[in-house]
Amino acid sequence: MITVNARTTYGPSEKFVPTTITRRDLGPKDVLIDIAYAGICHTDVGRSRSEFGSTHYPIVPGHEIAGVVSDVGPDVDLFSVGDRVGVGCFVDSCGHCDHCQAGLEPYCRNDRVLTYNSIGRDGNYTQGGYSEKIVVDQGYIVRIPDSIPLKSAAPMLCAGITLYSPLRHWKAGPGMNVAIVGFGGLGHLGVSISAALGANTTVLELSEDKKHDALRRGAIEYRLSTDPAIFDDFKDHFDLILSTVPADLNYDAFLRMLELDGTMVNLGVPKSPITLDVFSLLENRRSLAGTRVGGIAETQEMLDFCAEHGIRAEVEVISADDIDAAYDRVDAGDVRYRFVIDISTMAAD
Amino acid sequence: MITVNARTTYGPSEKFVPTTITRRDLGPKDVLIDIAYAGICHTDVGRSRSEFGSTHYPIVPGHEIAGVVSDVGPDVDLFSVGDRVGVGCFVDSCGHCDHCQAGLEPYCRNDRVLTYNSIGRDGNYTQGGYSEKIVVDQGYIVRIPDSIPLKSAAPMLCAGITLYSPLRHWKAGPGMNVAIVGFGGLGHLGVSISAALGANTTVLELSEDKKHDALRRGAIEYRLSTDPAIFDDFKDHFDLILSTVPADLNYDAFLRMLELDGTMVNLGVPKSPITLDVFSLLENRRSLAGTRVGGIAETQEMLDFCAEHGIRAEVEVISADDIDAAYDRVDAGDVRYRFVIDISTMAAD
Repeated sequence: MITVNARTTYGPSEKFVPTTITRRDLGPKDVLIDIAYAGICHTDVGRSRSEFGSTHYPIVPGHEIAGVVSDVGPDVDLFSVGDRVGVGCFVDSCGHCDHCQAGLEPYCRNDRVLTYNSIGRDGNYTQGGYSEKIVVDQGYIVRIPDSIPLKSAAPMLCAGITLYSPLRHWKAGPGMNVAIVGFGGLGHLGVSISAALGANTTVLELSEDKKHDALRRGAIEYRLSTDPAIFDDFKDHFDLILSTVPADLNYDAFLRMLELDGTMVNLGVPKSPITLDVFSLLENRRSLAGTRVGGIAETQEMLDFCAEHGIRAEVEVISADDIDAAYDRVDAGDVRYRFVIDISTMAAD
Repeated sequence: MITVNARTTYGPSEKFVPTTITRRDLGPKDVLIDIAYAGICHTDVGRSRSEFGSTHYPIVPGHEIAGVVSDVGPDVDLFSVGDRVGVGCFVDSCGHCDHCQAGLEPYCRNDRVLTYNSIGRDGNYTQGGYSEKIVVDQGYIVRIPDSIPLKSAAPMLCAGITLYSPLRHWKAGPGMNVAIVGFGGLGHLGVSISAALGANTTVLELSEDKKHDALRRGAIEYRLSTDPAIFDDFKDHFDLILSTVPADLNYDAFLRMLELDGTMVNLGVPKSPITLDVFSLLENRRSLAGTRVGGIAETQEMLDFCAEHGIRAEVEVISADDIDAAYDRVDAGDVRYRFVIDISTMAAD
């Protein structure tokens, strides 16, 4: 067992405090990773504050993990000490069901193990990336290309793949009109990926002040989602709408911006149940869909694609002592575009 | 102008009565059809009783029309006098937009003209198949194969294509698990078509008494949708669920019967807005979709497919004097499986 410094919270209204946790001894196919950076995902905030229910305390969040391999089990053949690697939202799955075999581990029939707040193969709750080291089976680790700094890579392990996977699944590419709703941690990567795939990419946002960044990342248009004119201007227009926002939307209004056979995909989780008029779907044979993150192979593909196209997350590096303040700013939408924790600051002062 | 006998109603609570209507003189590409049978679609009932709003009275419903060509305009080259033909839900569209050009006239960008209660190219409201004759542009007519009796063909022009189109679009075939919700006018044709396409077809129905017919038409399983056990038995099971019922469903429960990348398609129109939990979509990357009927080319393909596979609608032939009674029975679900009006009874006594 390895004991490492971490940050945890003991309840939905408690602040983060230093702690130590243990990591398992290396099994034959396990990899020990010295974590360099951990991104702060909106899910971390909601889970730590028990907004989704079912939080097990004390919790160590973090599923946007970038670091360097410091030890490997005897049967590890994919990674070596010194490799730059990443871990995303899940660290295990059954590996043998048809979904796992197809590289779709997030849809494992026997349930994947999430990186934190999930029962691991040893029966204990998993603990995430707000910690100095983590032990992960080599099958759930990806390689970070040399051209992507570790701090920029961390958010791509969740935010990046969450956009890349549906953009690929719904075949974003030349001639397609794609809308990204929300230009935040997810959206800023989604715009870059969508544009790099060749799609005509429009951003629908609540505020004007991110317009410059969106256009720089390849958006061809940037419009306020509060402007009622967009629903006429873009009527029957988009082939794909990706909603990255956790807010309640007027689904009928958004769906009616979809062209024939268009799909609106939920990546964010609205606060209330979705309600819609069936005619919003019947017209233009539209679909409303959801998606989880992509599998390991697709996550590697995403990182390689982003390296090739010069895409990286824009981050604000914080000290471990600033997690609570960062959470408040995430909730207020005040971050460009992702906080990452410098794990070298993890030890208690 | 041609004057023909028809049946009409003057208001949402009025009975059907004999009337006469006029049909336009034949234009160059127009076909005059002597109607033999007109099916009674659930939409006729709702529209005649103004349940969907926007009904223009007096209304002559009917968009499941089977008959014989009795005259043709000078430039008609697709049909000849004596041909057995059908007309479905629409009788015109712009013809030049990309959707029309792709054979998807129901999604015409400039709005297709419905067979009744719709503004036609002459500025008047269209009148449907509860009448002795109709004039239709040859581009909106299909040929009824000799092996399908006209009375059996009529309901296929709406009910049949409404099922065939999504079954083809979502690629029903061998190895796929398809559920048809509701075994009525639409569902009984859907089961036959789905089974003929090679899909494993399950019927979910409210009552046991149609089980024999469903199995005879090729269903491999017939289960009551009121049985809570189905939601466990079929968890993550279906690739495609087609809902033919106009009722409010528990969408979360139905969606969770979908396997990875499965789609639930609404063909019926629920009475209330659809509500659902986003996680029902996120899990298994599911979609909820809608569809209109297929285009003309696909409707012809459907009729040819049904002829080849011995599929036809099961009908109960009624006299024109019995339309009101039939409507009440449609509303009560008391029909196997479609009423068709014998148009030879159309004249006032």
